[in-house]
Amino acid sequence: MEKEHHFIDKYFKPLAIKSKQYPIGIGDDCAVIDSGERLITSKDISVSGVHFPKELDPYFVAYRSVATAISDIFAMGGMPTAYLLGITHPKPNEGWFESFSRGLNDFNEDYDVNLIGGDLTRGELNISVTAFGQAPGNLLTRTGANIGDLIFVSDLLGKGKKGLIDYRNNRDSDTNHYLKPQLPISLIPKLKQLVTSCIDVSDGLLIDLKRICSSSNVGAVINSRKDIYITDEHDLIAGDDYVLCFTAKKELKEKILALDSSIKIIGQIEEGTKVKVLNENNTEIKYKKDGWEPFESI
Amino acid sequence: MEKEHHFIDKYFKPLAIKSKQYPIGIGDDCAVIDSGERLITSKDISVSGVHFPKELDPYFVAYRSVATAISDIFAMGGMPTAYLLGITHPKPNEGWFESFSRGLNDFNEDYDVNLIGGDLTRGELNISVTAFGQAPGNLLTRTGANIGDLIFVSDLLGKGKKGLIDYRNNRDSDTNHYLKPQLPISLIPKLKQLVTSCIDVSDGLLIDLKRICSSSNVGAVINSRKDIYITDEHDLIAGDDYVLCFTAKKELKEKILALDSSIKIIGQIEEGTKVKVLNENNTEIKYKKDGWEPFESI
Repeated sequence: MEKEHHFIDKYFKPLAIKSKQYPIGIGDDCAVIDSGERLITSKDISVSGVHFPKELDPYFVAYRSVATAISDIFAMGGMPTAYLLGITHPKPNEGWFESFSRGLNDFNEDYDVNLIGGDLTRGELNISVTAFGQAPGNLLTRTGANIGDLIFVSDLLGKGKKGLIDYRNNRDSDTNHYLKPQLPISLIPKLKQLVTSCIDVSDGLLIDLKRICSSSNVGAVINSRKDIYITDEHDLIAGDDYVLCFTAKKELKEKILALDSSIKIIGQIEEGTKVKVLNENNTEIKYKKDGWEPFESI
Repeated sequence: MEKEHHFIDKYFKPLAIKSKQYPIGIGDDCAVIDSGERLITSKDISVSGVHFPKELDPYFVAYRSVATAISDIFAMGGMPTAYLLGITHPKPNEGWFESFSRGLNDFNEDYDVNLIGGDLTRGELNISVTAFGQAPGNLLTRTGANIGDLIFVSDLLGKGKKGLIDYRNNRDSDTNHYLKPQLPISLIPKLKQLVTSCIDVSDGLLIDLKRICSSSNVGAVINSRKDIYITDEHDLIAGDDYVLCFTAKKELKEKILALDSSIKIIGQIEEGTKVKVLNENNTEIKYKKDGWEPFESI
């Protein structure tokens, strides 16, 4: 069995590009962040058999594990710069790390980010990513939604769910949104000044919008229509979408819709604490759950 | 089964103290770090059954998992300020989180650090900590050891190993170094200007000193004597010590020894690439391994 540092030196050190902001690369006790600016950071864990199928190609394990963590940087209105990577692996081997590090490399190129350090140890396969980003100016928090604001999503709901179904039916592809989530990198700079609150839809639109409403002390009505989802109304409680759900003042509607043709209006912030979903006949849709919850099935 | 956010809200939000540097507390997509200064950061994973006994009291799981991560901040000459916490847990319950959060709280008070965010999800018990610290001025890296430098440790070797043996013999105590590692917080500010390289002894003195030597392109001779270890020469390859191993110019010897009576000289940096351990008769001690390695036993 090769040792921890064999894999780190061979597969991860080459991914660490030294820069003014990250001056020392991988290989000391800590990574150094020399930004001089406000940083934002978030940690996200992906567990084999919980967050991704046990047999998933390590290339996609890497790509989607980093993507789900970096998604939180966009959700705060930031631009990602780097990440720390923690891997717990039951029995490392060259093939696994070769494929995994290719997934990292492709993600790093797609989103212009840098691996700056991490840890590798033994255990059930578990990928823990600490994402870093810069967010000068205003932050897009969950607390700013106001009564009367419109609610938007940055893209169709249900792409993650469809991607997982396609994967299970052996319809892999490089555009599978479950395997390689596409994140709203080009939207963030344009969107930043226009919204009152924002979250990324990782566990399901309904559960994540409820997080905005709870933090902002407001309620909401969602109008579930065919043009906001891929398959059906269950896409509103499907996870793995990594679109942004955000709120903005009504008068900015046209300006926001003009930013990108993928952006949809899905409802409105209201008084109260409830989040209701109405179908096209204005009848309330009652869901048995709001979205994905790690401890629900145990 | 209670949900993820029940445990986060009840046990972790109260630990997040808002400050100028960490202005938003727990509960949004990201933590915000508003330091304006260079940051150092490190990620460390502790897995149940690998890094700590499966039956260990969650209080100590918390305390030692955070301590092992924060140790890397001291090893770079920094002072810790905060951490992100990732928990993968097979079946959360109130008792576990109550005890675990008490361990966090006591660590936070002992080392004046703040929990700023994280993730909680399902899987084998796995604690992933991303530590943050400030390190104005020079960093204590692994690369600066020079031929002729003396090698020091900040305290006796083998305290972690003894602590684990005591724990297995039901001799728990609040001063057990395996359960509650004591970190060199008061030493760092005094030591910073004096050393040429530094690492924390987490996997064993020999393996960690070899990391300094490899990064600095030098060799070393260690003189194993009774006054540098607790039990015997096997303490030089025991992990979990979290003392600092550092190098400094010979002429600073008295100044460094005067900083703290626990500091010991253990050897000298030499030409070459080898790290040799000599016993009190100047005979080389041959070890079968250099220290703890996560993938050795599989």
